[in-house]
Amino acid sequence: MNTFESACRAYRARAEPALAARLPGAGADSDSGSDIAPNAAPSAALAPAQLANAMRYACLNGGKRFRAMLVYAGGAIAGAESAALDAPAAAVEMIHAYSLIHDDLPAMDDDDLRRGRPACHIAFGEAAAILAGDALQALAFEVLSADPALRVSAGRRLRMVETLAVAVGARGMAGGQALDMQAGGGDFPDNSTVDDSAVAPATVADSAPNTVAHLARIHRLKTGALIRASAQLGALAAEDAGDELLQRIDDYAAHLGLAFQITDDILDAEAAPDGGALGKRGGADKRMQKATYAALLGVEKARIEARESGERAVAAAAGLREIAAGFGDNAAHADFLAHLARFAVNRNF
Amino acid sequence: MNTFESACRAYRARAEPALAARLPGAGADSDSGSDIAPNAAPSAALAPAQLANAMRYACLNGGKRFRAMLVYAGGAIAGAESAALDAPAAAVEMIHAYSLIHDDLPAMDDDDLRRGRPACHIAFGEAAAILAGDALQALAFEVLSADPALRVSAGRRLRMVETLAVAVGARGMAGGQALDMQAGGGDFPDNSTVDDSAVAPATVADSAPNTVAHLARIHRLKTGALIRASAQLGALAAEDAGDELLQRIDDYAAHLGLAFQITDDILDAEAAPDGGALGKRGGADKRMQKATYAALLGVEKARIEARESGERAVAAAAGLREIAAGFGDNAAHADFLAHLARFAVNRNF
Repeated sequence: MNTFESACRAYRARAEPALAARLPGAGADSDSGSDIAPNAAPSAALAPAQLANAMRYACLNGGKRFRAMLVYAGGAIAGAESAALDAPAAAVEMIHAYSLIHDDLPAMDDDDLRRGRPACHIAFGEAAAILAGDALQALAFEVLSADPALRVSAGRRLRMVETLAVAVGARGMAGGQALDMQAGGGDFPDNSTVDDSAVAPATVADSAPNTVAHLARIHRLKTGALIRASAQLGALAAEDAGDELLQRIDDYAAHLGLAFQITDDILDAEAAPDGGALGKRGGADKRMQKATYAALLGVEKARIEARESGERAVAAAAGLREIAAGFGDNAAHADFLAHLARFAVNRNF
Repeated sequence: MNTFESACRAYRARAEPALAARLPGAGADSDSGSDIAPNAAPSAALAPAQLANAMRYACLNGGKRFRAMLVYAGGAIAGAESAALDAPAAAVEMIHAYSLIHDDLPAMDDDDLRRGRPACHIAFGEAAAILAGDALQALAFEVLSADPALRVSAGRRLRMVETLAVAVGARGMAGGQALDMQAGGGDFPDNSTVDDSAVAPATVADSAPNTVAHLARIHRLKTGALIRASAQLGALAAEDAGDELLQRIDDYAAHLGLAFQITDDILDAEAAPDGGALGKRGGADKRMQKATYAALLGVEKARIEARESGERAVAAAAGLREIAAGFGDNAAHADFLAHLARFAVNRNF
């Protein structure tokens, strides 16, 4: 096991309990409501057990914790301690889990399997899955706003809340998924039948043909925005991280996200249709007739694009190495980010 | 038109543009992605037009703006100016609209109509509706964390974010909807087939029989939590509002929420099945075989309960009147809250 792999394991071992501890307790619900006054404190309420179970099931499922790693490494470069990074690491993993729950729904990508297990809506039903996703989004913002392990000024915390909110909303993850659904031509009809002054006709851009530029926009929003926010949240958790570091790490994460996504497309195109290595039905993108880099460019050209994005991320990590030195002996964390960028391109799962 | 009615109109006239201005612009999307670098600033991204349209359609649909009124009145008692209350007022209306979108989905309450118009998923498709709800939740937190019209300290803003997050998550609105779905016996199966250490068996409390105590818990979470948060957010937007005022206004809002909910149940039970006054299919609760106060207590006893809750809210408003005097001549706003509590019980729509 090389240094990169052991660092990944260490981050994962840190992220897992940090996430689990912030989810509503499994089976902790004994609040029958009978002895609770209507005006009892909101914090006195407990999460319903079934909903809590669906949230835990979706979050604690052997994920790679890739986004948590970006929080930890991004924060470590700027001198933040791991304990102070647990809260944002958990928050971004909650958001990621919520997005997968909703993406897998029948009305969306309609995937029955997630990481080799029944998807949340298969295990708990659609209603519980929708609500588990909704509640995970809220919990991520609760954690960022109030978790005592995060020790930064209120102003810094607010920037973290804003950064995450922009990244996951209509200009970020949700917007990217909407564009992806439209590109797939699925259950995303034109709204021309709606007669309402608040509603404008869809623009040319939204119904753009499947060009690489349009695909890049989808991914910049759908997956890139949360990856970038993860690295930002780590750095923001270090009170002293300045604008130059924040900009540089955002640059790194943007290229990393693109490298990761193009590689995902390639892996999906190459996956056997009986599932297996990916833990979900391979070829799902092709089945849904979605535009992917592999489909638009061909696998070989897509591979070149992925490699170029990876190299840009590695270059940004080298720049971070210098800045990291100003915060103490943190160069190893920048080296980790460079390794991560290479891994994003070269992995086979 | 009496004073109460004109105050309602004035609040609504204030809330409507405050909300509209904070939603992504209708048809503003001309970002084809072709000239955007992968690492362009996240704020440079635009919401996809179709998603923005679904968000606007769901928000700008002639709602009563009841939660926005609580923000404005709650803040005015503590001396906050209306302009500073626009952001939290918009945020709570976004959350309310998102909850209605998701509640109406086929996997949830399966309602095709909302306020006399096609529900969001009928007008835009299920995928767009799910995503519009998701994006509205994120936008509410973005607005609270960053809107420049809100002029309070960072610490105060953080409390607002936390208050809203707790109110809408698993211990609040989403948890209440989950309990409501379970009580309805719909698509919310037991998870006994799931073999996972992270998942605990459902507790007795969650599968409790349809008792008034259990129903009270559902409503305390499902509708009560956001109503209370709305009043809190208003008061928190006034930097000087202290703990006593915050506690008193929470007390008021908790009783108001219960009065409102019981009255909703009664109105639904009495509504003609062909819709009309409610703007959605009347009798929907009965059709879904959900527990309601009207069903469990009978309409007459439910009416008594609603009246008692309303009176408790009126009493709390009287207490607020005294505190309001300490912030200047704000007694009229406390009187408005007392009127609102009476209206909650006596309305016929």
